[in-house]
Amino acid sequence: MDQIEVFCPGSVANISCGFDVLGFCLEPVGDLMKVTKTDKPGITIGSIKGQGLPKDPLKNVASVAAMALLEAHPSSFGFQIDIDKRIKPGSGIGSSAASAAGAVFAINELLGKPFSRNELVQFAMAGEALASGAAHADNLAPVLLGGFTLVRSNQSLDIIKLPSPPDLVATVIHPKIELKTIHSRAILKNTVPLDKAIQQWGNLGAFVSALYTNDYGLLSRSMKDKVIEPYRAMLIPQFYKVKASALQAGALGSGISGSGPSIYALSKGMDIAIQVGEAMKKQFDDLELEYEVHLSKINNEGIKIV
Amino acid sequence: MDQIEVFCPGSVANISCGFDVLGFCLEPVGDLMKVTKTDKPGITIGSIKGQGLPKDPLKNVASVAAMALLEAHPSSFGFQIDIDKRIKPGSGIGSSAASAAGAVFAINELLGKPFSRNELVQFAMAGEALASGAAHADNLAPVLLGGFTLVRSNQSLDIIKLPSPPDLVATVIHPKIELKTIHSRAILKNTVPLDKAIQQWGNLGAFVSALYTNDYGLLSRSMKDKVIEPYRAMLIPQFYKVKASALQAGALGSGISGSGPSIYALSKGMDIAIQVGEAMKKQFDDLELEYEVHLSKINNEGIKIV
Repeated sequence: MDQIEVFCPGSVANISCGFDVLGFCLEPVGDLMKVTKTDKPGITIGSIKGQGLPKDPLKNVASVAAMALLEAHPSSFGFQIDIDKRIKPGSGIGSSAASAAGAVFAINELLGKPFSRNELVQFAMAGEALASGAAHADNLAPVLLGGFTLVRSNQSLDIIKLPSPPDLVATVIHPKIELKTIHSRAILKNTVPLDKAIQQWGNLGAFVSALYTNDYGLLSRSMKDKVIEPYRAMLIPQFYKVKASALQAGALGSGISGSGPSIYALSKGMDIAIQVGEAMKKQFDDLELEYEVHLSKINNEGIKIV
Repeated sequence: MDQIEVFCPGSVANISCGFDVLGFCLEPVGDLMKVTKTDKPGITIGSIKGQGLPKDPLKNVASVAAMALLEAHPSSFGFQIDIDKRIKPGSGIGSSAASAAGAVFAINELLGKPFSRNELVQFAMAGEALASGAAHADNLAPVLLGGFTLVRSNQSLDIIKLPSPPDLVATVIHPKIELKTIHSRAILKNTVPLDKAIQQWGNLGAFVSALYTNDYGLLSRSMKDKVIEPYRAMLIPQFYKVKASALQAGALGSGISGSGPSIYALSKGMDIAIQVGEAMKKQFDDLELEYEVHLSKINNEGIKIV
């Protein structure tokens, strides 16, 4: 096999109570990436469609991740990466994670799969570090493993795949403003009040339990964030109105997707998820702010060959 | 039925990564409580064996909890409570929770069970508040529901019973010094560094996942506490030596039981739990500090009629 094309899905990280540890994988939205073996060793970026991203291999998230993999597993041939970038950078649904995961997944396939999907996370982290200033696995893990994932430790990359209740559907609305992860991090406080931290980990524990027991009511009650949301909401126009409208339309919960500006909601069933999307749209229509809406089941498979 | 005797088990709260939210119920250690209907309405404390606790119904944890129940469910007759107090107050294995839970459980039985075990937590909270200054359900929940429990919200008393991996055995060593919960709370900081809070909720999520999947390795990796233990360890002589010796003897994890001074360990299987107990003892023997050791499977039934 000399060439492979992969679908690199978007993902939602943080999920209210799970800042920096929880994420889930989206189904219909993602990049396409073609990777081709070359005679000359090393990584080159061929074409980039859709977005103006750097072609310098040292500055592109996909090639930086690819080089990290090749450092651990040297190869006598090289790889050219062609990207059809459909996830807008800075949208909050894991644009850089899709690129980084795509490159390492595709090259791993072309090398005969020396690494497991779980092992690929460590290499993709190099790409994430380039994009966001600090490497986090909370988007990479769901893209590479599929479904819901928990990053127990970002240091040791101890990653757990969690079950997905069958009827969950995500609605994600992306207002057309760009937020850099690096800025969304800067707005956060370095300390958390102990009582709020306790509420947060109580909610996270309940959220994990609800995934195992398909308890949609508990899932809904646990989708709270008293720690991060109050700060990041300031960067997103109409955030609280959009969230309130989603809940009123029947969503189980709603919050900031990744570091924003996208806002996600989880609902039981596609019908409700559609209504939630309509309700969210209305808030941005009132502002005359452009947006895009994605409806998605939980993508349990993750990144895949097309 | 005019009289009932109940076994009120001890419990371990906090469990390293689960400060204020996680707990499990012990099997062999607990109080005995006899509750008898009386013609005169109200609550009286009859005899208290084992410990010098107040007989004034307004100052005793059991009677205060009982009165909270009777306020919600008035009765034309009263109740006398006789306590054989086997769990030493201030030992860190839920002495006040056993008393509070015992009184409300026994009276609920004598009243024909108007309340579920889950509903009884709210009344028992009144007793806990008397004992520790602030009402927390992290010991009450495992005593009343059995097994492992998660208190998602202490405000709304949203309590989840979690599964217990079949081979888990607890070793609890109680050095004979008394620590008041109120003092163990005072030593804590009001804020937590954000990075440590993230590690804590990552570990808690992983711990909950491990209970559902019987993943003893993950359970072990997640039994960490960077938030509370560093402060409370200062109140417990030899804490780090005892913990290290437990881990060296094969325990999955070890930490402070409740607010201390008891130290707990969880092991896979009784043989290891016994060796862990011997290793822990040795540290206190070197200090010539008196202690008591309990070995216990996870008590999945909780409080019960004897």
